[in-house]
Amino acid sequence: MPTITGVEIEDVRFPTSLTADGSDAMNKDGDYSAAYVVLRTDGTDTTGAPLGGYGLTFTIGRGNDIVAAAARQQAALLVGRDVDEMAADMGAVYRSLTSDSQLRWLGPEKGVVHLSVAAVLNAAWDLVARRASKPLWRLLADMTPEQLVDAADLRYLSDALTRDEALAILRAKEATKAERVAHLERTGYPVYTTSAGWLGYSDDKLRRLCQEAVDAGYGHVKLKVGADLADDVRRCSIAREVIGPDRRLMIDANQVWDVPQAIEWVRELARFDPLWIEEPTSPDDVLGHAAVRRAVAPVGVATGEHCHNRVMFKQFFQAGAIDFCQLDTGRLASINEIVAVLLLAAKFGVPVCPHAGGVGLCEMVQHVSVLDYVAIAGDLEGRVTEFVDHLHEHFTDPCVVADTGSGSGYVLPARPGYSTQMHPASVAEFRFPDGGYWSMRQSSEDSVLAPVR
Amino acid sequence: MPTITGVEIEDVRFPTSLTADGSDAMNKDGDYSAAYVVLRTDGTDTTGAPLGGYGLTFTIGRGNDIVAAAARQQAALLVGRDVDEMAADMGAVYRSLTSDSQLRWLGPEKGVVHLSVAAVLNAAWDLVARRASKPLWRLLADMTPEQLVDAADLRYLSDALTRDEALAILRAKEATKAERVAHLERTGYPVYTTSAGWLGYSDDKLRRLCQEAVDAGYGHVKLKVGADLADDVRRCSIAREVIGPDRRLMIDANQVWDVPQAIEWVRELARFDPLWIEEPTSPDDVLGHAAVRRAVAPVGVATGEHCHNRVMFKQFFQAGAIDFCQLDTGRLASINEIVAVLLLAAKFGVPVCPHAGGVGLCEMVQHVSVLDYVAIAGDLEGRVTEFVDHLHEHFTDPCVVADTGSGSGYVLPARPGYSTQMHPASVAEFRFPDGGYWSMRQSSEDSVLAPVR
Repeated sequence: MPTITGVEIEDVRFPTSLTADGSDAMNKDGDYSAAYVVLRTDGTDTTGAPLGGYGLTFTIGRGNDIVAAAARQQAALLVGRDVDEMAADMGAVYRSLTSDSQLRWLGPEKGVVHLSVAAVLNAAWDLVARRASKPLWRLLADMTPEQLVDAADLRYLSDALTRDEALAILRAKEATKAERVAHLERTGYPVYTTSAGWLGYSDDKLRRLCQEAVDAGYGHVKLKVGADLADDVRRCSIAREVIGPDRRLMIDANQVWDVPQAIEWVRELARFDPLWIEEPTSPDDVLGHAAVRRAVAPVGVATGEHCHNRVMFKQFFQAGAIDFCQLDTGRLASINEIVAVLLLAAKFGVPVCPHAGGVGLCEMVQHVSVLDYVAIAGDLEGRVTEFVDHLHEHFTDPCVVADTGSGSGYVLPARPGYSTQMHPASVAEFRFPDGGYWSMRQSSEDSVLAPVR
Repeated sequence: MPTITGVEIEDVRFPTSLTADGSDAMNKDGDYSAAYVVLRTDGTDTTGAPLGGYGLTFTIGRGNDIVAAAARQQAALLVGRDVDEMAADMGAVYRSLTSDSQLRWLGPEKGVVHLSVAAVLNAAWDLVARRASKPLWRLLADMTPEQLVDAADLRYLSDALTRDEALAILRAKEATKAERVAHLERTGYPVYTTSAGWLGYSDDKLRRLCQEAVDAGYGHVKLKVGADLADDVRRCSIAREVIGPDRRLMIDANQVWDVPQAIEWVRELARFDPLWIEEPTSPDDVLGHAAVRRAVAPVGVATGEHCHNRVMFKQFFQAGAIDFCQLDTGRLASINEIVAVLLLAAKFGVPVCPHAGGVGLCEMVQHVSVLDYVAIAGDLEGRVTEFVDHLHEHFTDPCVVADTGSGSGYVLPARPGYSTQMHPASVAEFRFPDGGYWSMRQSSEDSVLAPVR
């Protein structure tokens, strides 16, 4: 019944490069940014407030305007659409947004046009969940296997996963969904923290943050590595000393190595018993990851935040290239493609530990991980979802991580939608280049606000 | 000595969808387009004319503005650069344009930001070749092995190709380069034509165009397939009947199949003895192509026009997934990445048969194929480069294909540069949306100029 009456696309950038938050060996000075999509409707929600859809994709600064421009072209296709008709066939909505052959040429299914369609579809999924007055994970978990498979994009996957196999995976979990929901309501979904280990932090800050992570109940801590081996050895020593032998340490190289170099470097760090090496080399290099994995076992191999689509994940699974699937909710084309990857991962028995951090990613991944446990993988073994404690204050319904007694976990989202609505005041302040913050910074160039390098 | 004083980026679109030129099973109504980059300098060439650099990437319509916007941001980095200093280290120019970590996030090395950097670097290579008063292929063929390897991007390739191996490949061809140049001066570089076989053409038009290709001396003809099997059988019958048993027939599915469907469909068409099946499935599916290749031999497998970077090609070679490498001069990041792929292909013994057609691609690929033969692969066996006879009239130095007595071939380019300068009048007419043609079409909507479907 409600109809989409308009779209607004905002280029929102936060000056995170000032504090080295998010710094790693590849990305030294990112300004965490969102290409933010707002779908307006003529309807109201159950509280009488205007009904809208709010979605985003994450970038690290320059070029966020390019993603926003692409999202503007794609989102325009939704104006005039009936929200209930969309909700009844989100697979069709996905196909209508991804099958323009002229725009497809610019990927296909990768890069700017895929990031932008993710933002638009994330807003569409948020909208239909709000319309149903359900958190998105529950909307999806309440679907029948047929409905969920119809929403998923299984194109190009049939050599690895047929529709019948997908249905069988979902049917096998159907009867016990409520038990798993009840379990997560008690424990939350397991998380790990990356907030401690950014490459630009001093040793003292690293030590202090590792201790804070231990004190907060985290069982896992992740460090950035890859710029300098001696530094990495020293930082891993500090982290291992603080977290002790039983908590898990992960390391993340953010793609800086060639394959032979990755193998050599990880072997040097293996003495610190890392659970995984993340992004050891180019995110496109399926066979390279497989070679690294064979060479560095028992250290696991993880990747996915830059894995651009389900066809790449299919190959990572087929080639036995990864131990952990770190899909990204801003890079895959929203729930339609994410469900396909969750199904593939379940088929191949690879645990999904989504990438988060940035801006808004934690808000989204909690829904994805909960869906995975409740309706698809049905298992928490080997699963732990990233959490970074930055920028949540800009969201109206921020994720909550709490220690429930069995370790830190994402508290099950309870409010309708995908949790990615931003405060209008935050958008007004950090819109680039004309928001309050950026206008002021521009006018005070060369002042204390200049970037610290 | 000359300095880049400014850049101009144009969104140029040709209304090819009106005539179904370029139609295939995935791309039914492309408007062939160029994100066109002009680098202005304060210098002159040897004729006294203003010295400039002209480059492009190819798209098929909508979204060309997005690529142009990205190119504008990247090309701005070149303003103020000394042309001779650039020419002395084009590897550094490449790195300066591709290593912005914030823009890199939008790929990495794929999609819009990779297409756009290709356009900018194509213009830069055109500029340095014009400055040297050499066609680009000769500028490159005259480089020492060390110079050419220094210009190439070998990052992420060392597990398949070391720098020393790259140098050895080039050194082995050094002494005999002049002989191969002389050979091409006599024969041209072998071509095949796709002009005959677009999917939207009628059977009569297909028959006539196949006959024209035979009459013009072509030894190869390519057809689009994949929309309907019965149609494909009929069209392949017509083509094979016209070209006879000895000329080669190629078929191209433009990514429409899943892997099992590709295998089944190609087996049905195998009776027409195709040399290759092109783009049988997703361009990202290295392992899928390998499976298709194993299943449809002796039909070869070809792909590359959507293969987004050297890391993907490395895996296609490592996995034994393709018989023919169809790299694209608008999709790879110009000569720097193309040389890396040519070296990989030479190492693995896979013939490179570049993708062309579109707008401006034929102008570029002639330089690449000549370089490959003269300095890298040193062989014509199994090589044939695409030629499509559309839109050449818009270039100041269009490629020329002629029958030299030993079959049709690209005539060796003789004028300085990369052959991609467009006539200013063409840009003025087809600039979108404000050029003469598009302004008129907009004002006569619903008239005879409306697209024919």
